Amino acid sequence: MKNIDLSKNLNFDLDQLVPGQSIDCVIMGFDQNELKILVLKWKAEGEIWALPGGFVFKEENMDKAAIRVLKERTGIELPFLEQFKTFGNINRRDTDILLKNMKSMGIGSKMVDWFKQRFITTGYLSLVDIQKCDPKPDFSSEMIKWASLEELPHLIFDHNEIVKIALDFIKNRVNYLPIGITLLPEKFTMKSLQNLYESILQKKLDRGNFQRKMLKLNIFIRHEKQLEGGAHKAPYLYSFDEEKYKKLLEQGYGFYS
Amino acid sequence: MKNIDLSKNLNFDLDQLVPGQSIDCVIMGFDQNELKILVLKWKAEGEIWALPGGFVFKEENMDKAAIRVLKERTGIELPFLEQFKTFGNINRRDTDILLKNMKSMGIGSKMVDWFKQRFITTGYLSLVDIQKCDPKPDFSSEMIKWASLEELPHLIFDHNEIVKIALDFIKNRVNYLPIGITLLPEKFTMKSLQNLYESILQKKLDRGNFQRKMLKLNIFIRHEKQLEGGAHKAPYLYSFDEEKYKKLLEQGYGFYS
Repeated sequence: MKNIDLSKNLNFDLDQLVPGQSIDCVIMGFDQNELKILVLKWKAEGEIWALPGGFVFKEENMDKAAIRVLKERTGIELPFLEQFKTFGNINRRDTDILLKNMKSMGIGSKMVDWFKQRFITTGYLSLVDIQKCDPKPDFSSEMIKWASLEELPHLIFDHNEIVKIALDFIKNRVNYLPIGITLLPEKFTMKSLQNLYESILQKKLDRGNFQRKMLKLNIFIRHEKQLEGGAHKAPYLYSFDEEKYKKLLEQGYGFYS
Repeated sequence: MKNIDLSKNLNFDLDQLVPGQSIDCVIMGFDQNELKILVLKWKAEGEIWALPGGFVFKEENMDKAAIRVLKERTGIELPFLEQFKTFGNINRRDTDILLKNMKSMGIGSKMVDWFKQRFITTGYLSLVDIQKCDPKPDFSSEMIKWASLEELPHLIFDHNEIVKIALDFIKNRVNYLPIGITLLPEKFTMKSLQNLYESILQKKLDRGNFQRKMLKLNIFIRHEKQLEGGAHKAPYLYSFDEEKYKKLLEQGYGFYS
């Protein structure tokens, strides 16, 4: 398993991989204002955009494979990715596009056969702070970019559907677990926390109502106002009380907890 | 795909199946008082208990396979099963127990090789009303039973872990979506609804608080008290207002909705 490096050669030893099983990563980045998705443009004659994805070694746990695949394809190292769904429809992949581009992609015929088999793919996601990430395209990609949801290109196979399901997953998530500690700077305003929630929920929230609900959670430390410029209008800065945040993360704040 | 019947013969045509991919079903039944899990005892010399599980045909969507597998193994026909997680650890299956029991299970050596490969399994679940189900063991099972969580036997492979994850999934679910319309009789008391929530959340809830929260949802129709016996103490009966219930199911009642 150690002696082949998928990050440098597309014609790797297929016998070492679990047949028919792939991983696709939906990395959502927040840049203080909106949510973006990390996508790769393949080195190919046609314009092919895709999620960072890859395969699972026979001797590798699937959760570990997700971490490795993300690192190989984007350079991003995360300790954990969250599995959100497995996609197992027979027609989820239209491989014609690969056949048309195999020459410009530098893929041999054995690899084409590999790609042509039925694949069941498991989706993994992570929410990251764009400021703290420096994604780089791997050898097989021409470009990597953060695409806003409005500018998300047409992606290969069922990858647009995979992104949609990942967003739904995160939308549900914020209904019962707190969010934000890894996505916001150490000190932040309620407005920027509201921006985060609005970008995930894809809707405007009432400011007063949001702040009331949030502050009621009792997971914030309030700091002094920053006395700059129009000082009397400066908003309070907050930070998360890590211990209380963690406790709430364990118990959830759902309807019945 | 039509010409083989997995429900009658364990030595089926392996070439028609997706290699290394299985399905396991966690069917949770509610019988007015507690939550139970449907488990099968295999026909084998040793005592082997397992979730109802099976494989995926190459020409079959995975979600459809789950419905078929459940029907073949238990006789229960459901229109939909909900996928909750895929289990992809390399050591999730200890196949020694199969090797020891292959003779009493009537498995040939080709089938043993099939079982010995690495399997990634996708878990599907459903919550059902025990009164409306009549599970029957398939040809390969000696017995089928509803086991309460306290009496859940040791299950093969990682099936106990799969049950645990399914329960966690449902626990989270009740925090943001309503539950009960398929599990309770048409008319029910708030006490029996509370029993359902308590059996899922695995904890006692405060009666007054529960009823207040529930009635605030405005998804119930209140009926007359049944004037029997100690009439003045008879509780109100309720039914779900299907339209309002459905609407709430779509929007969720989470913290930020």
